[in-house]
Amino acid sequence: MADPRFFKNDGPFTIAELADAVGGELSDGCDPQLKIQDVAPLDEAGEGDISFLDNRKYVPAFEASKASACIVMSEFQDRAPDGMALILTDTPYRAYAKIAHAMYPGTRPDATVHPSASVDPSATLAENVSIGANAVVEADASLAYGVLVGPGAILGRGVTVGEGTQIGAGASLSHCDVGANCELHPGVRIGTRGFGFDMSAEGHLDVPQLGRVIVGNQVEIGANSTIDRGAGPDTVIGDGCKIDNLVQIGHNVRMGNGCVVVAQAGVAGSATLEDFVVLAAQSGVAGHITVAPGTQLAARSGLMRASEPGAKLAGNPAISAKEYFRQMAVLAKLTKDRNS
Amino acid sequence: MADPRFFKNDGPFTIAELADAVGGELSDGCDPQLKIQDVAPLDEAGEGDISFLDNRKYVPAFEASKASACIVMSEFQDRAPDGMALILTDTPYRAYAKIAHAMYPGTRPDATVHPSASVDPSATLAENVSIGANAVVEADASLAYGVLVGPGAILGRGVTVGEGTQIGAGASLSHCDVGANCELHPGVRIGTRGFGFDMSAEGHLDVPQLGRVIVGNQVEIGANSTIDRGAGPDTVIGDGCKIDNLVQIGHNVRMGNGCVVVAQAGVAGSATLEDFVVLAAQSGVAGHITVAPGTQLAARSGLMRASEPGAKLAGNPAISAKEYFRQMAVLAKLTKDRNS
Amino acid sequence: MADPRFFKNDGPFTIAELADAVGGELSDGCDPQLKIQDVAPLDEAGEGDISFLDNRKYVPAFEASKASACIVMSEFQDRAPDGMALILTDTPYRAYAKIAHAMYPGTRPDATVHPSASVDPSATLAENVSIGANAVVEADASLAYGVLVGPGAILGRGVTVGEGTQIGAGASLSHCDVGANCELHPGVRIGTRGFGFDMSAEGHLDVPQLGRVIVGNQVEIGANSTIDRGAGPDTVIGDGCKIDNLVQIGHNVRMGNGCVVVAQAGVAGSATLEDFVVLAAQSGVAGHITVAPGTQLAARSGLMRASEPGAKLAGNPAISAKEYFRQMAVLAKLTKDRNS
Repeated sequence: MADPRFFKNDGPFTIAELADAVGGELSDGCDPQLKIQDVAPLDEAGEGDISFLDNRKYVPAFEASKASACIVMSEFQDRAPDGMALILTDTPYRAYAKIAHAMYPGTRPDATVHPSASVDPSATLAENVSIGANAVVEADASLAYGVLVGPGAILGRGVTVGEGTQIGAGASLSHCDVGANCELHPGVRIGTRGFGFDMSAEGHLDVPQLGRVIVGNQVEIGANSTIDRGAGPDTVIGDGCKIDNLVQIGHNVRMGNGCVVVAQAGVAGSATLEDFVVLAAQSGVAGHITVAPGTQLAARSGLMRASEPGAKLAGNPAISAKEYFRQMAVLAKLTKDRNS
Repeated sequence: MADPRFFKNDGPFTIAELADAVGGELSDGCDPQLKIQDVAPLDEAGEGDISFLDNRKYVPAFEASKASACIVMSEFQDRAPDGMALILTDTPYRAYAKIAHAMYPGTRPDATVHPSASVDPSATLAENVSIGANAVVEADASLAYGVLVGPGAILGRGVTVGEGTQIGAGASLSHCDVGANCELHPGVRIGTRGFGFDMSAEGHLDVPQLGRVIVGNQVEIGANSTIDRGAGPDTVIGDGCKIDNLVQIGHNVRMGNGCVVVAQAGVAGSATLEDFVVLAAQSGVAGHITVAPGTQLAARSGLMRASEPGAKLAGNPAISAKEYFRQMAVLAKLTKDRNS
Repeated sequence: MADPRFFKNDGPFTIAELADAVGGELSDGCDPQLKIQDVAPLDEAGEGDISFLDNRKYVPAFEASKASACIVMSEFQDRAPDGMALILTDTPYRAYAKIAHAMYPGTRPDATVHPSASVDPSATLAENVSIGANAVVEADASLAYGVLVGPGAILGRGVTVGEGTQIGAGASLSHCDVGANCELHPGVRIGTRGFGFDMSAEGHLDVPQLGRVIVGNQVEIGANSTIDRGAGPDTVIGDGCKIDNLVQIGHNVRMGNGCVVVAQAGVAGSATLEDFVVLAAQSGVAGHITVAPGTQLAARSGLMRASEPGAKLAGNPAISAKEYFRQMAVLAKLTKDRNS
């Protein structure tokens, strides 16, 4: 079971309740009143635990599992150990996620303003807002229902934060509007000035950055990631984007919905990511280009020009991933030929 | 117009005032009393706005623009729409920057110490210093005229900060002297111990890092960037350097004047960057090498040996950028030949 | 001498005391009562200073040095200038580190809780704990003897920190147990939720991350580095690991003892690093792979599959470093042939 210092288990649930919650079906002969207390991986699960099978590779672990119950696609139900209860669904991992949320809904701090926090009298706090110790909310900021501001977080003048959004410890926001149900992790920096200046031997001169950052709904932004405000246009992060830790998003970038940016990747100024673009870890996108919907850029790759929808790219400058790995193989072969 | 929650417009100005401020000339027939209220891009500008043309590519946008005024090089003045007032200059982007600064000079918090800040009695605060909520100034720190310390920022024992410098929210400084008119963004870490230790199977042993970080004047350091203090010598950042977000500068690094380091780039310990070196995004410089004046390292490249002045480099290990792209083309051709 | 604003010199020591402290031998004729006040590099050292020679390349500097004393291997003692006292040892750099620690043991803040800190009454503070200004210690956290919490640092609910560990300014910890004698630098983020979710066009769905971060003893973690908590298993950092600035460690990663991860490198989720793995700057390790003991991955390289013990790797995908540099040479040659 998850460490109770950090996670509170809300079980047990009956398996019928869980199947219902995820829109799955119970297998034949399964006792709907079976009590499930916890989630666990196939090889660690025991009595009272529910596990899931999402990958053909783990069928042997499924066959050997001691879990009381498991979430599987119906094609695998014949492989279940005797007596294991099954929830049948086409999307076992998603169902697992929902059940784990039910088991561990998370604890919220009280809806209070910690006495050590500094909240400007002109700020607007809706009901059920929680402000952590030593947090700062500046003038005219506006926090919607249920916003949670972590300890030491700093919301700058005029910033707005939508319903249910959580701001991590020590994060700082300025010049931005953040949507509802977002999760911004500790140390996130939003709204800092874009890296815009006139270069000159007599001294670089800053160009005022007069835009904002507009963050959609249900966006996650990882620890210590940075998103600069626009130069004049806004920097825009679409609904449902998932951004990992230590990611850089430059000024004027526009991200569509559902984009995924993995750790330490970066997007240069004025680039556009259309919907569902995936940038793997440590990759980079050059400025002023448009990345087509569904493009996937491999880890450690650098995209320097516009892509086709659904393209899978790798290398630096990035080309088709298939072609990139072919080139690496040819180079290895040529080198071998030379040395033999 | 820029969002008034975040930016205060100080206009209008007469076009004569603006031309004067940037050392430009008014075009023939232009009414010197024309009132300009705001800055805007060519395609969005309207009555009362001034725009700029800095790139031949945007001449059509210039010809179609509804801006009341525009900053251009004299060679383009014939292409202006009828009735558009022009400020003629050889450096339109720089002039635009100056005019945008005049329009939006920025607002400063009051020159007060927020009651929630913790300022050691032995610290020295010159006049017009502003200390934000929950900021910390430790013993013997010294802040010059007009220094601005953001909320939650932390200035360690003995640190000095020069006139007019701004320290962003949640930044932390130790073991350093920072010059005048710098801008350090939120989450910057300066003066942490360098990554120096004796490696051994019996356990790595730290080597005390006994140097400082010396930051020049008019330096910008981006959000969540990190600059380690020297091991014995100091780490030095020259005047006018521009450092973007999430950049790492190792111990003992010496940067000359006017260097530009773009987001997520890194400079390893004891490297020297001479004046006006440019490191593009996600690039890296190896330790103990000297990068000659004016060297430009392409994005995602790794420089492993000393460069020639003005060199343009790419790849890993970096070679001449021209040669790098030629090699990529040859490899593509060879791969194609093999597969046909 | 190191700047007394930041470093307090505890000298002088007699050379006999220093030799004793490092288990070295004094050279013949050396006065054991010779007073040593400070450490300095060979070319800067003068009277009262001790230096060290660790690299054959610096023998000329050794021969010309004005240091009163030097730490060297016995094979070099003949090259010493007349009158220089020597401490003879097989590990001069390590001996230097120990002597520098003796000279500059560092100053600790008083063992007090700063009045501006916010410490939950249910937290346990052992003796000699120091809590900095505006720091936050949440409910049920437990700090062992001598723990030092920097200004603005935030220890989340239930976190434990071992004896003598130092937490830097503005760092934030949650869902973790940290061992003894660790040094966590400013802005470190530990315990944030791993980047785990079910991807779907109907909206990505978070998978609850129910594990912790377990940090061993004598671990160093650099400024603004991020370590996510496990998804179910824990993320584990072994004893004696050295992690530099801006490093990302994903969920479920297991690092053995004595690993070294240089600045801006990253380790993807569920990867295992066995003992004494070295990841150079800006390198990356893919998820779900095992990196064998003693593997060394070159700067800016990407490891995509399991390695052999002691392997030296480079490139992306990483191959033998020797082979990588051979391939680069062959590509250069082929390109030259084509263009001539």
